[in-house]
Amino acid sequence: MQVSDVEWSQAEQTIAKAAFEKAYEREMNALIEQVRGQASTIETLKDVWQLHDFLSAKRHDMDGKYDYQYASLIFVFATLVKEGWLYLDELEGLAADKLMKVAVLSRME
Amino acid sequence: MQVSDVEWSQAEQTIAKAAFEKAYEREMNALIEQVRGQASTIETLKDVWQLHDFLSAKRHDMDGKYDYQYASLIFVFATLVKEGWLYLDELEGLAADKLMKVAVLSRME
Repeated sequence: MQVSDVEWSQAEQTIAKAAFEKAYEREMNALIEQVRGQASTIETLKDVWQLHDFLSAKRHDMDGKYDYQYASLIFVFATLVKEGWLYLDELEGLAADKLMKVAVLSRME
Repeated sequence: MQVSDVEWSQAEQTIAKAAFEKAYEREMNALIEQVRGQASTIETLKDVWQLHDFLSAKRHDMDGKYDYQYASLIFVFATLVKEGWLYLDELEGLAADKLMKVAVLSRME
C-alpha cells in the first residue's frame, strides 16, 4: 500500500489540520488530567520517579507522533485512531482512498 | 585540605548515617510537596514538560548526591548543609576536624 506519496488538496489539508489539532488537544488534555491525578497521589520518592518515567515515555511518544508532514500523515492518523485520540468520521471529506488506508492501518498491530 | 581518607569511628558512623537519612527524608518530602503543588497548577503541555525537566534534573542531582560512601561523606554533608537539607549541629559528635571541614566546604561556592 503506497501511502507516503499522495497528494492533499487544499480542502483536504484544512480537514487534516483540524483533525490533527483536535487529536493533539484531546491527548494533551488527557495527559494534563493524568499528571494532576497521578501527582496528587504521590506518597514516596518511588512514586515521583514513576511519574518521571511516565513523562519521559510520553514526551518521546508525543514528540514523535505529532509531526505534521503530509508524507506521513496517513500513518499519523492511523496511529491516532488506533489510540483513540481521533475518530474516523472526523476525517470525513478526505479522498476515499486516504480514509480507507487510515482505517486499514489503524486496525493493524 | 585532605578529606577523602579520613577514618570514621563506630560512633561517628552512627551519627553520620542518621544525619544522612534525615537530610534525605527532608529533601524527599520537600520534593513530594513541590511536585504535588506544581502538578496541581498545570494548565498547558508546556507546564507538563517543565515538570518533566524539573524531575529529570532533580533525579540526576539526588542520584549523585545521596551516595553513602565514607570517602566522600564530608563533601556530601557540606553540600547538604549548603543546600539547607542538613544543619551543622545535627553532625554533633563527629570529630572536630570533620565538623570544621564540613563547615568550611559548605560555605564555598
